[in-house]
Amino acid sequence: MPKAEVAGEGKLAPKDSVWKYKQYVCKAKCFDITAGGKIIVLNETEAHENDLYTSHRVILRSQKAQTVAIIDVSSDLVGRGEVVLFSEVASELGAMDGNEIEIMHMQRPASIEFIKKKMDGRTLAKREIDTVMRELMENRLSEAELASFITSIYIRGMSEDEIVGLTESVVGTGQTLQLGRRPVCDKHCIGGVAGNRTTMVLVPIIAAAGLYIPKTSSRSITSAAGTADTMEVLANVSLEIDEMRSIVQKSHGCIVWGGALKLASADDKLIKIRNPLSLDPKGVLLASILAKKKSVGADNVIIDIPIGRGAKIADQKEANELAHDFISIGKRLDMKIEVLVTDGSEPVGRGIGPALECRDVLSVLSFEGPPDLFDKSCQLAGALIELSGKAKKGSGYAVAQRLVTSGKALAKFQEIVELQGGQKNANVDDIPVASYKHTVYAKENGRIFHIDNKMISKVARAAGAPNDKAAGLLLLCERGDKVNKGDPLFEMHSDSEAKLDFAIKALEGWEPVELRRVVLSSID
Amino acid sequence: MPKAEVAGEGKLAPKDSVWKYKQYVCKAKCFDITAGGKIIVLNETEAHENDLYTSHRVILRSQKAQTVAIIDVSSDLVGRGEVVLFSEVASELGAMDGNEIEIMHMQRPASIEFIKKKMDGRTLAKREIDTVMRELMENRLSEAELASFITSIYIRGMSEDEIVGLTESVVGTGQTLQLGRRPVCDKHCIGGVAGNRTTMVLVPIIAAAGLYIPKTSSRSITSAAGTADTMEVLANVSLEIDEMRSIVQKSHGCIVWGGALKLASADDKLIKIRNPLSLDPKGVLLASILAKKKSVGADNVIIDIPIGRGAKIADQKEANELAHDFISIGKRLDMKIEVLVTDGSEPVGRGIGPALECRDVLSVLSFEGPPDLFDKSCQLAGALIELSGKAKKGSGYAVAQRLVTSGKALAKFQEIVELQGGQKNANVDDIPVASYKHTVYAKENGRIFHIDNKMISKVARAAGAPNDKAAGLLLLCERGDKVNKGDPLFEMHSDSEAKLDFAIKALEGWEPVELRRVVLSSID
Repeated sequence: MPKAEVAGEGKLAPKDSVWKYKQYVCKAKCFDITAGGKIIVLNETEAHENDLYTSHRVILRSQKAQTVAIIDVSSDLVGRGEVVLFSEVASELGAMDGNEIEIMHMQRPASIEFIKKKMDGRTLAKREIDTVMRELMENRLSEAELASFITSIYIRGMSEDEIVGLTESVVGTGQTLQLGRRPVCDKHCIGGVAGNRTTMVLVPIIAAAGLYIPKTSSRSITSAAGTADTMEVLANVSLEIDEMRSIVQKSHGCIVWGGALKLASADDKLIKIRNPLSLDPKGVLLASILAKKKSVGADNVIIDIPIGRGAKIADQKEANELAHDFISIGKRLDMKIEVLVTDGSEPVGRGIGPALECRDVLSVLSFEGPPDLFDKSCQLAGALIELSGKAKKGSGYAVAQRLVTSGKALAKFQEIVELQGGQKNANVDDIPVASYKHTVYAKENGRIFHIDNKMISKVARAAGAPNDKAAGLLLLCERGDKVNKGDPLFEMHSDSEAKLDFAIKALEGWEPVELRRVVLSSID
Repeated sequence: MPKAEVAGEGKLAPKDSVWKYKQYVCKAKCFDITAGGKIIVLNETEAHENDLYTSHRVILRSQKAQTVAIIDVSSDLVGRGEVVLFSEVASELGAMDGNEIEIMHMQRPASIEFIKKKMDGRTLAKREIDTVMRELMENRLSEAELASFITSIYIRGMSEDEIVGLTESVVGTGQTLQLGRRPVCDKHCIGGVAGNRTTMVLVPIIAAAGLYIPKTSSRSITSAAGTADTMEVLANVSLEIDEMRSIVQKSHGCIVWGGALKLASADDKLIKIRNPLSLDPKGVLLASILAKKKSVGADNVIIDIPIGRGAKIADQKEANELAHDFISIGKRLDMKIEVLVTDGSEPVGRGIGPALECRDVLSVLSFEGPPDLFDKSCQLAGALIELSGKAKKGSGYAVAQRLVTSGKALAKFQEIVELQGGQKNANVDDIPVASYKHTVYAKENGRIFHIDNKMISKVARAAGAPNDKAAGLLLLCERGDKVNKGDPLFEMHSDSEAKLDFAIKALEGWEPVELRRVVLSSID
């Protein structure tokens, strides 16, 4: 079979390259267009004279910075000596209209050789992985090259050495939190369960237990709310790393948006590539999660793997394998890891959407809230307390429960909220309420058979979540409940009549809350 | 391992999808920007309200046509109710400023399931391959998805059934030539050899032998000239399929640019994806070549596989394997195929660049030209004549040679050139000559050890080839020649002093013509 060959123009030594010589300077013209990538537009004739073509990548240099961008061309919009910069490029270069921008041919990325090596089934050395991650960070790799890399990893797998190497490499691409205190705890959930806001209950419990938990969370991608979106209802979540450190040193915990920090930066870029293909090769999944934990200096980590209908991980067997990998690779990275496999087939808590979930969290911390969210949070917190040596095996749950019932966890939560710029003594009154509501009722008698995470999220998003904080869904039933025709199943909340309307239309043909009926159909 | 999952928003049935409902109409604003893909810019707020984000794909509909495009967003440049169309989109939609454009959410491409299937090592059925090719043609697949597909094929390989299926599928995406005459001959070279213009000699020989040869050729991608670029020195190569048919019916042959026709269209798109990654999985290579042959209705095909230093195919063993695949798959597609493995380590002929290569072709047809080009062309033509049954085994070369020496091939070439809109009795005087020349001389005594295809091409391109027809290189020596210090090695031709200068600078540190020296270094 013909071997995968060198890409593009062949290997050019930096010094004697033909094209290196071909660098030229243009005046910037900034266009307010966000393209999801770095795009510039060159004058077509001038570009061709310089052997630059549509879709090629070039290095750009302003007085302030350097970056890599992809070329579009135009003969009308861009004159000779001009370069149009789309938003991402202008911002990265710190460039304004009229600034001089140097345009240089780019050497073929060194990573291509290593992507090919992986493709051919060989094992990558640490320094080879480092090169791929570095060039990823420098935007030198195209979407196609990265897709090829991820696909190769998906098919060929990764050795434990490679996963450890990738984790360390990803950590190395970003900042790290130097807390100067120990032990540092952390927690991660593989995701996909609606309403599952355990982090916001667990963090104050752990902090109240005297352990450190510098928690970074994500915003929603396809769900109705991420932990960062929910915390944002009460507090600021976009913190600098120094602010984060100082808050954790004071209160033992925080709940901030990971995206605002620059921890394990390469991971954010890897996620961007994995998402469109929906590929999540095990090695990359492990490295991605562990790099985030490593970059905040975690010693003790609890991983929540939800399984069941619609969950990311299909069954107990797959969950067990993944759990063993986590533990074994964690060991090599000096992290003690425990994995809890949980039921992820139904939403946890009653609210779906930032404000409604935040309300659940405050209720749980006030020992009033949804029992499933209370129980799951205490299970996870208890395991983490045991793992850290703060409680004996088997007594962690009780310790966690006591920290809630005594009000210490709520006080700790309010302390953290205040340190993150929120109200003093934050409570339910600080949570916004939606202006428009619509209740969905059971159309017949039956028993609740299934509540679908994905559909619930979709309807909540249609109503405006997570951007409209108060928008979402409030579940009024649980799996197993007996309901009669006309009983309320759930409420839809929205800030605008139009969005509520849209969400109601979205329900047509769907059944986010499924009833099991006695008579399945009648034939006459 | 977590399975590769459904991408994007999950599977939406066309009828009950939330997003289907969210279609809206905007006024077109055409921007003269060529992006190498289909790009539109939406107003950021309006896009988000419609659940559309940067990098997502949408279906666009004008009064005339429908296409798929990728979203960029802007808050300043694009107002509510407006959509900016980049050149490719405007042209595909036949849209002008102010036209109404309907914007619709796109369902997840069905191909993703089949790309995943290939990734998981399973075999694709014909209808699954058809779906991928159809969606490829409709621009429904992203670069990342296609890269993932090609990578999966590279790693997993393709069965003979799959290759046959892919070939037929690719043929089905384009037009086919219905010549109504037989036998139809064709020829293909795997490529990578500079100056190798055998096609332009072979076509008139075959046509003069009374066989049909509706030859489509490519333009250069990274070389100094493709056959289409070289033929264009004397004739028009951008023909419609009807013109092509009528010319071949009259003269038995033609040499046209394949890109202007719409034969095997999916192949052009596949090539666009294979190139940046430089992946050429055997199955795709075979299907790609055979689809082009099938789409002109070829019965007898000669394949030229150059091997040796710097060639695409490394050695005789690999060439043999590929040859057997060609023959065996050709049989299933009703094509008689013969493969010639040739020496591809050095350029063929003296000229490199469109005009200089064209000159070689006319010289060979006048029985004066470079003996290597003459010999190779007659070898290939002879084999094709034998394969078609027009000459007995072993006598094809002599038949081909006689058609040249008798002047019949030249007359046929001139007939074809004239039918393709060129001069009557086209000859050397019709070929443009460069205004600037520069000769490179041997710096010491020695013997020519190697002439490097890639470097030769690079220098010729630096001098302006293939866009400047007269630009390029003229080789004044061959491998094995003994040279003395000061002997001329090659001439560089260019239409502009600046480009010539640039090409001379490009030579620094390179040695496209390598001498083997007696004294390798002297130490003092």
